[in-house]
Amino acid sequence: MNNFNYYIPTRIFFGPGSIKELGTAKLPGEKALIVISAGPSMKKYGYLQKVQELLTNNNTESVVFDKILPNPVKSHVMEGAELARKEKCDFILGLGGGSSIDSAKSIALMVKNPGDYWDYIHGGGGLGKGFKEPVLPVVAITTTAGTGTEADPWTVITNEELHEKIGFGGDDFFPVMSIVDPEMMLSIPPGLTAYQGFDAFFHAAEGYIANIATPVSDIYALKSIALLAEFLPVAVKNGKDLEARTKIALANTLSGMVESTSSCTSEHSMEHALSAFHPSLPHGAGLIMLSESYFKYFAEVCPKRLMEMSKAMGEAGKKPADFITALIKLQKNCGVADLKMSDYGIEKNEINKIAENAHHTMGGLYDMDRKTLSLEETIKIITAAYK
Amino acid sequence: MNNFNYYIPTRIFFGPGSIKELGTAKLPGEKALIVISAGPSMKKYGYLQKVQELLTNNNTESVVFDKILPNPVKSHVMEGAELARKEKCDFILGLGGGSSIDSAKSIALMVKNPGDYWDYIHGGGGLGKGFKEPVLPVVAITTTAGTGTEADPWTVITNEELHEKIGFGGDDFFPVMSIVDPEMMLSIPPGLTAYQGFDAFFHAAEGYIANIATPVSDIYALKSIALLAEFLPVAVKNGKDLEARTKIALANTLSGMVESTSSCTSEHSMEHALSAFHPSLPHGAGLIMLSESYFKYFAEVCPKRLMEMSKAMGEAGKKPADFITALIKLQKNCGVADLKMSDYGIEKNEINKIAENAHHTMGGLYDMDRKTLSLEETIKIITAAYK
Repeated sequence: MNNFNYYIPTRIFFGPGSIKELGTAKLPGEKALIVISAGPSMKKYGYLQKVQELLTNNNTESVVFDKILPNPVKSHVMEGAELARKEKCDFILGLGGGSSIDSAKSIALMVKNPGDYWDYIHGGGGLGKGFKEPVLPVVAITTTAGTGTEADPWTVITNEELHEKIGFGGDDFFPVMSIVDPEMMLSIPPGLTAYQGFDAFFHAAEGYIANIATPVSDIYALKSIALLAEFLPVAVKNGKDLEARTKIALANTLSGMVESTSSCTSEHSMEHALSAFHPSLPHGAGLIMLSESYFKYFAEVCPKRLMEMSKAMGEAGKKPADFITALIKLQKNCGVADLKMSDYGIEKNEINKIAENAHHTMGGLYDMDRKTLSLEETIKIITAAYK
Repeated sequence: MNNFNYYIPTRIFFGPGSIKELGTAKLPGEKALIVISAGPSMKKYGYLQKVQELLTNNNTESVVFDKILPNPVKSHVMEGAELARKEKCDFILGLGGGSSIDSAKSIALMVKNPGDYWDYIHGGGGLGKGFKEPVLPVVAITTTAGTGTEADPWTVITNEELHEKIGFGGDDFFPVMSIVDPEMMLSIPPGLTAYQGFDAFFHAAEGYIANIATPVSDIYALKSIALLAEFLPVAVKNGKDLEARTKIALANTLSGMVESTSSCTSEHSMEHALSAFHPSLPHGAGLIMLSESYFKYFAEVCPKRLMEMSKAMGEAGKKPADFITALIKLQKNCGVADLKMSDYGIEKNEINKIAENAHHTMGGLYDMDRKTLSLEETIKIITAAYK
């Protein structure tokens, strides 16, 4: 019977075609910095042009910053903030996947606050300073179903020099408005669909076993897990299936709401360490590689929670191992059961370094586990996951 | 696969002892108008003193307005707003049940906006004007588990002269902060506990069968219904059971979130008409009296929805009538299965007038039904419910 706080002030427009809301909704400023990835897709599929057109219809100016990498980096946060200042933007619009939206949140911090982004970061080499100036309002338009960042106050940025990939955020970082339009997700290729879907899955699953889970985060988490178990394989198989895309988009937004009301756990610390050293490793793929070993460990810590999750996935839910069975089945159905760390150049002799990085940079999430893992236990979990 | 908007910006502090947050949280102003009922309980149980003390500790002044009736009336809204102006209050704190919190919301509108409260009301004799001045921020501290108003943007006020009891609200009426502390609910007598619990129940059940229900409102609704089916009889039997109180307080807050993401349906229009003419009738009692007849009607309109609700209540959920069975069982377990309209002075020859009032004053909720009821059908439903 936990006490809890609930606070998700974001206005979310959800559903096929909901992008049109951008043309009429009350926006938080007069000139947007549109933050998109360095890749071609936002232009190729016409999403950028659509957003620019709707902003114009809504009497709002905009300028584009198009340098964001899949694992977004600090130098681009600083560069984007500089551009927003120069162009006198008064809000930041993140368009794309988690990398663009997270970058938008971090840029929003740095437009008015002085110094370096890492000055404000807690953990690793961050200085953990408080910020005194306001964070600019953020509008999030998500074109993937993975991070849930459109419904949470978190942003994950990598410091390239320090090899630190660290989450940061708080109440000031909730998007004021988010648009989740599954029609803008139809072109995601199968592999990425699976990786992103599993990222959402683990936000829900970790949030469900976290020690700060609440009755409200629990209902979001179980619904998200149920939707992903049913519809992620469908969306991986046929990316044009709008119903399946809509269901996994909903699962993802619910997972963001889990992030806002509960927390990720140390599985995310471990994955951030993996991809901090191996930036080509997709975050979702890293999580999938770690998951069997990680959740087997927690099967003994919170067996009932694993049973409930397995029930949401259509298993009998009579023993905690049912969750592992369901997890592997879902991975197989999505074609991602055979991912290997070695395929991404991760070597076995790096495991100690990776485990240390996980504790050093994202130690906070270890406090969210129902049983606190030692460095040795982290090493064991990663070693068991190594293929 | 409905599109939907999600917006619940209220910061909710939930759980036993959470009242203490008032002493440290960031408040939306420097001087509160504390709105409480005309009854003795807020003083008798020390809740008012506690709130005053915590506000003082939090460097916030306050003044008390203690005239609110169980069915709150327009004249007290006007009087409260006058007092807030005179005392230069910059936020309104509703302390108590739905009547006090709803009054706080309505007062918050009238402090800076001119004219009469009914100028702004839609439906009945309301003029439906837009308001130009801001609504003052509202803090809600709920001491009952019934209306869910701490988590929704609605307020229901009765115009005594016109016999109109009408709901009103919108984005500006969400409390900025709500505190739901079940320790402040331990003294509610069994009958009121049942009436209030059923009010929460019907917010969830109507929100679940409303034609604007969303996947998010659905998960709140089913969880609320499940919690009430299990714990309302416990709380009615033993009001000091803190666990049961906490569970039904959670159900109530979730029902408020249903109100924010879906809507009540015409059952509420009918009850508002009943208690507009018979103010001694508790709202929850009126809903209970109408419910069997009302939901039997909708068993044919949306059978699957009734089956899902009955499953949440522990029934097999194989036919829609299982919901009626579960509803009657819950009423019996809470000692409210034998309520009669005639016991509250409602006469059979008033039914036409009541039905007309329901359509005239709260016609908007008829648009939320999956099948729109005619005046004749409303008369039939109320007639079948009459004992």
